[in-house]
Amino acid sequence: MSFVGTPDPDSGWLSDDDFAIVRRQLPILYVEAVPVRVDGRGVVTDVGLLLRVSSAGAMTRTLVSGRVMHGELVRDALLRHLEKDLGPMAFPQIPLSATPATVAEYFPPPSESGLVDPRQHAVSLVYVVPVTGTCDPRQDALELSWLSPPEALSPSVLADLEGGRGQVVARALAAVGISQ
Amino acid sequence: MSFVGTPDPDSGWLSDDDFAIVRRQLPILYVEAVPVRVDGRGVVTDVGLLLRVSSAGAMTRTLVSGRVMHGELVRDALLRHLEKDLGPMAFPQIPLSATPATVAEYFPPPSESGLVDPRQHAVSLVYVVPVTGTCDPRQDALELSWLSPPEALSPSVLADLEGGRGQVVARALAAVGISQ
Amino acid sequence: MSFVGTPDPDSGWLSDDDFAIVRRQLPILYVEAVPVRVDGRGVVTDVGLLLRVSSAGAMTRTLVSGRVMHGELVRDALLRHLEKDLGPMAFPQIPLSATPATVAEYFPPPSESGLVDPRQHAVSLVYVVPVTGTCDPRQDALELSWLSPPEALSPSVLADLEGGRGQVVARALAAVGISQ
Amino acid sequence: MSFVGTPDPDSGWLSDDDFAIVRRQLPILYVEAVPVRVDGRGVVTDVGLLLRVSSAGAMTRTLVSGRVMHGELVRDALLRHLEKDLGPMAFPQIPLSATPATVAEYFPPPSESGLVDPRQHAVSLVYVVPVTGTCDPRQDALELSWLSPPEALSPSVLADLEGGRGQVVARALAAVGISQ
Repeated sequence: MSFVGTPDPDSGWLSDDDFAIVRRQLPILYVEAVPVRVDGRGVVTDVGLLLRVSSAGAMTRTLVSGRVMHGELVRDALLRHLEKDLGPMAFPQIPLSATPATVAEYFPPPSESGLVDPRQHAVSLVYVVPVTGTCDPRQDALELSWLSPPEALSPSVLADLEGGRGQVVARALAAVGISQ
Repeated sequence: MSFVGTPDPDSGWLSDDDFAIVRRQLPILYVEAVPVRVDGRGVVTDVGLLLRVSSAGAMTRTLVSGRVMHGELVRDALLRHLEKDLGPMAFPQIPLSATPATVAEYFPPPSESGLVDPRQHAVSLVYVVPVTGTCDPRQDALELSWLSPPEALSPSVLADLEGGRGQVVARALAAVGISQ
Repeated sequence: MSFVGTPDPDSGWLSDDDFAIVRRQLPILYVEAVPVRVDGRGVVTDVGLLLRVSSAGAMTRTLVSGRVMHGELVRDALLRHLEKDLGPMAFPQIPLSATPATVAEYFPPPSESGLVDPRQHAVSLVYVVPVTGTCDPRQDALELSWLSPPEALSPSVLADLEGGRGQVVARALAAVGISQ
Repeated sequence: MSFVGTPDPDSGWLSDDDFAIVRRQLPILYVEAVPVRVDGRGVVTDVGLLLRVSSAGAMTRTLVSGRVMHGELVRDALLRHLEKDLGPMAFPQIPLSATPATVAEYFPPPSESGLVDPRQHAVSLVYVVPVTGTCDPRQDALELSWLSPPEALSPSVLADLEGGRGQVVARALAAVGISQ
């Protein structure tokens, strides 16, 4: 085994090839966000879920998600991925604290936690993030759908979330007082 | 002992005289808030503390605070007291969840908890609340002062908070990742 | 309206008659507990739910629950009600912190929160409490049943919980990482 | 840059040499624990801090701490490091939930968070863990000292904690209701 890439030495970040090796050897730190809309009393009125086309061609739902990079604060990783997935006009209210709503532990199958990521062992700090602006998903997300809390927590929607993230959404929403 | 007041039967709330009796017999539920200003990354830049003249004529610092009324959701009590103490243009971001940053238990002295309220046994749900507008304290608050987090957590400022609330502020700010 | 009872002046507690009046005028502070059994790694293996016969003669499930009395710390109220409902040999591990897993707000119907208590507006601090000993329910609880986490979170069991407490159980268990 | 070590291919873990490279390129996930002793009411009576001799020969205090390995649940990493640092008879009560009391972000200097690790960018999930048995520190820890909560939170003790961990201890204890 050897590192094959040539990362930018100033960035301190791994090349894609080297990261492909490392992610089989170390848990990788992620942040994930459940975007929500709230009214003036702080009541969650809508829950945002991303729709993606999976590599197998199926439509799946997922969360705003991405890695924390070397040298980056958790809050900055969260802001960066919210902008990447929801566009620059989403105006998310970044949580004051890095303490997450819940922690999600993903493993290649078989996974004791019930959460699966075939690529890696990922540990994700999960936040519920109010957004106040206009969301315009980019990249590989086809669409952001806003669901009422009961819709978002319906078994059929939760089952559409990839890698067992239905239970992550349920736990994150429960942390803000919303349950089925 | 008897109830002496004549509360409005439609309000379902106790008269002041009856409440004076009841508060010696039951724990009274409060909400308290530490107002903060945050930047676009969710970093707390300023902590708001109220200055009051105590009944003994001394200047003391305190929190936004008040009772939860019968029939009122915690979030609505929090919004009502924020508007009462900071004015209608403060535009607080009410927490999504009623789960507090910390719970403060006040007792008439002697108090095992170290938190003192000579009037009553009060149990307070404490929140850190970003405000985005203009604060204009009303009622008996003379002034709202904005302090940097290190200033707010300095021993001299914490000691100025009435009833031991210095430790409540310290715990509430610690819950959002800020400590001395 | 007047206070009719003659409470023990030394106890500082209201008589039953006076409390019947006050609970229509003030929110009443409760603690509730979801007892659990855990293994040596902290994994929840069993969730305890109480079975009661309701006033209408129906079997319902409920939580360990009770009021916080005047002058009593939340942790002492929690310990008292765990002993009352589970017996003196349950050996509960009382949480280090009074900050609850979730807050439950019960109202007489109609209730915006979805949680119903026909008698009163109750605000309940809810905890998940490991018990290590032998549980021997007393009083009006007929039985404590231990369910696996998936059983406890099944729709039929959650629906059996009185007053909407199914969502309270779901939120409390989600706070310790367990969801459907 | 290349990977130089020859890790055991069955372990899925990096060699020390390869890890020395990777830790300059990726945030490394840690768990940290503040061991405490509690009484039967859940009140923290003692706070455990480790004494180490630093590489410069100075005595410093620190927390139970260590990496999460590939394929390992956070709870298992926490248990492993508690046993490593406190011995096999400490009998820690592992938290039910992976959601930490606080998150600590360490960076090589300069560090915006105020927490410093010269070796790496480390993100640490921090827990307060009751221990019920006998602690017998091993490895490079010379001693475990048990301090009362006020002693543990005294400025001189907090200042002895390496890398700014004094504020981590303060935040973790605040999460269980203990402040200066």
